[in-house]
Amino acid sequence: MIERIAILGTGLLGTSVGLALRAAGFRGSIAGWNRTPEAAQVALEMGAIDFIAKHFLEIGRKCDVVLLAVPIHTTIDFMEQMAGLLGPHQLVTDVGSTKREIAAAASRLYNRKGRAAFLPGHPMAGKEQGGAALAEANLFRGAAWLFTPVAGREGTGFSPYEISPENIGALAPGGISPRASDLITEWRAWVAKFGAKIVDLDPTRHDELVAWVSHLPQFVSTALGALLENEVGDAPELKEIGGRALREMTRLAASPYSMWRDIAHTNTAQIEAVLHAFEQRVAHLRENLRTPVLRDEFEQANRFRR
Amino acid sequence: MIERIAILGTGLLGTSVGLALRAAGFRGSIAGWNRTPEAAQVALEMGAIDFIAKHFLEIGRKCDVVLLAVPIHTTIDFMEQMAGLLGPHQLVTDVGSTKREIAAAASRLYNRKGRAAFLPGHPMAGKEQGGAALAEANLFRGAAWLFTPVAGREGTGFSPYEISPENIGALAPGGISPRASDLITEWRAWVAKFGAKIVDLDPTRHDELVAWVSHLPQFVSTALGALLENEVGDAPELKEIGGRALREMTRLAASPYSMWRDIAHTNTAQIEAVLHAFEQRVAHLRENLRTPVLRDEFEQANRFRR
Repeated sequence: MIERIAILGTGLLGTSVGLALRAAGFRGSIAGWNRTPEAAQVALEMGAIDFIAKHFLEIGRKCDVVLLAVPIHTTIDFMEQMAGLLGPHQLVTDVGSTKREIAAAASRLYNRKGRAAFLPGHPMAGKEQGGAALAEANLFRGAAWLFTPVAGREGTGFSPYEISPENIGALAPGGISPRASDLITEWRAWVAKFGAKIVDLDPTRHDELVAWVSHLPQFVSTALGALLENEVGDAPELKEIGGRALREMTRLAASPYSMWRDIAHTNTAQIEAVLHAFEQRVAHLRENLRTPVLRDEFEQANRFRR
Repeated sequence: MIERIAILGTGLLGTSVGLALRAAGFRGSIAGWNRTPEAAQVALEMGAIDFIAKHFLEIGRKCDVVLLAVPIHTTIDFMEQMAGLLGPHQLVTDVGSTKREIAAAASRLYNRKGRAAFLPGHPMAGKEQGGAALAEANLFRGAAWLFTPVAGREGTGFSPYEISPENIGALAPGGISPRASDLITEWRAWVAKFGAKIVDLDPTRHDELVAWVSHLPQFVSTALGALLENEVGDAPELKEIGGRALREMTRLAASPYSMWRDIAHTNTAQIEAVLHAFEQRVAHLRENLRTPVLRDEFEQANRFRR
C-alpha cells in the first residue's frame, strides 16, 4: 500500500534506509531530499533514491510515508513546518537518537483529527562517520529498531507500554485514520524485512535506556580520546603501542560533534546522571586497586559480557 | 645459536610464542612447562612445544633461553629461584605487563658476573580471555614488543634510553657475557620475525606509558561493564539494544581478574593517576553538555583518531 516514500536527509541512515528498502523488494518510488544536493546525488548514484526532490515540504505532501533522517532539532523543525500541510492519509516517521522531545512534538502536532500520523523511530545502528557514501543495505541487520508509538489503538500491532503524562494526549483512540494505521503496520513490516528487531518503548524509558547503552559508551570514548590526545598525542608512535584494546576503546572518539550535539541537548539530564554514576564507579575502582573489591568489580563486569 | 628454549607458562602468550617460533622457522627444541599440566598438553598438541617439562628449574638450567610467561608476581618468584642456578651463558626473558618491578629484580639478580642475562620484555598483544587453546602464531604480527633492557653495552643493538636510579646498577658494562649478548641479539631477531615492532624503553617510562594506553582502557571497560551490569543486567534484551558501540566498549570487560591483579598491584600509583585524570575529564564533559566546550572535547578526541 505504500507507493511513495520521501527520505528527507540522505546521510548515512537515510541512504541506508533507501538501500534497505530496495534490497527488501520495495517497488514503489523513493524520493530523496538533502540540504546539500551533493549528498543527494551520491544517494541517487547508489540507487538508494529514484530522484532528487527540490523542496522538502512539496515532496512531503506528495508521499505516503515521509522519513525524517536529519538531526533532532531539524526533525522537530520539519515536523512543525509539515504538520499543517500533510493529511490524515499520510505517515511521518523518523530515525532520531532521542525520543522524548520528538514524541512530545508528535503528540502536539500529529496523530489527531485531520492531521498525519507520526511514528517516532530510532534504529540502533550507525557508524563513527556519517555520509551517504558509507551507507549499506545491511546496516540495520541484527540491530534493534526502537519505536516509541504515540498512538495505542487496538489492532495497530503496537505493544503496550506505560502511559506517561507526556504521551497521554496522543494515546486518545481515534487520532489516527484507518489508512494511516495501515501505513504504520506496513512500515513496521519493512523495518522487520531490513533484518532489524523491533522494540516498542515509552519515550521517557527510551531516553533513559539509550543514555546507558548508547550515550554513555560514546561520551566515555570521547573523554578517553580527548585525554589521550593531551597525554600521548604529541608522540604518534605511542598510539601504536596500545594495540587493539586502545583502538577499539577510542573508535567512537572519531564521531563528530555534529552527530552528537542535538543528543546532548535533548537528553541532557539523563546523560548527566549516567556520566556521574560512571565517574563514581571509576573512582570506586581506583580506590580499590589493591583490595578484594577489585575482584568483585571484574566479576561484575564479566557477568555483563556473559 | 639458540638451540634450546624453555617456555615456562603455556597460556595464551607462552603458547603463541611457541607457535610463532615454529612459524618463523625456529628449528631447535622447545620445552614447555605449566603449573597445570593440562594446559601444557594443549600447547603440545598444537605444536607450540616439543615436550612437557616436569620441573621448571631443571628445564631452565638446560636451555639457552628461558621465557617466563607467567603472572608478574610468579615471574619475580621464578627469577629469584632461578638466579643462582643459571649461568652466564644463558638468557632469561619475560612477557610481563609491568616492567619496573621486574627490571629491578633483574638488576638485583641478573646481568652481573657469573649470572645469566635477563632481558625484560612485554608484547602488546593479548585477548580478553587467556589459555593455550586461543593461542595463535600471528598474535604478535603488527603489535609492539617492548623491551626495557637492563644492560646498555655498545654493540648489543639496544637503543639508548634514560638511565634511572633503578636501573643504573645493571647498566654497568661487562655484566653480560659475550654469549648472552649474542643470545639477546638473536632473541630480538626472532621477535622481529614474529612480525612485532620492537621498541626499547626505560622501565619507569614503560609503566607510565602502558598505564595510559593499556591499563586505562582496560579499567574503563571494566568500570563500564560493572556499572551496566548493575543498571541493565537484569534485562538481557536491553543489552541487545546497545549494538556494536556497546559491545566494543565492553569487550575488555570480559577480562578476568586473574589477568589484571598483578598489574594493578605492580603499577598502582600510575593507574591511580590515570584513572583520576580520566574521572576529571568525564566530569568536565558532563558539566559542558550544553556549552561550546563539548565541541572542543569532540574535536580533541577526533584528533586522537586521525
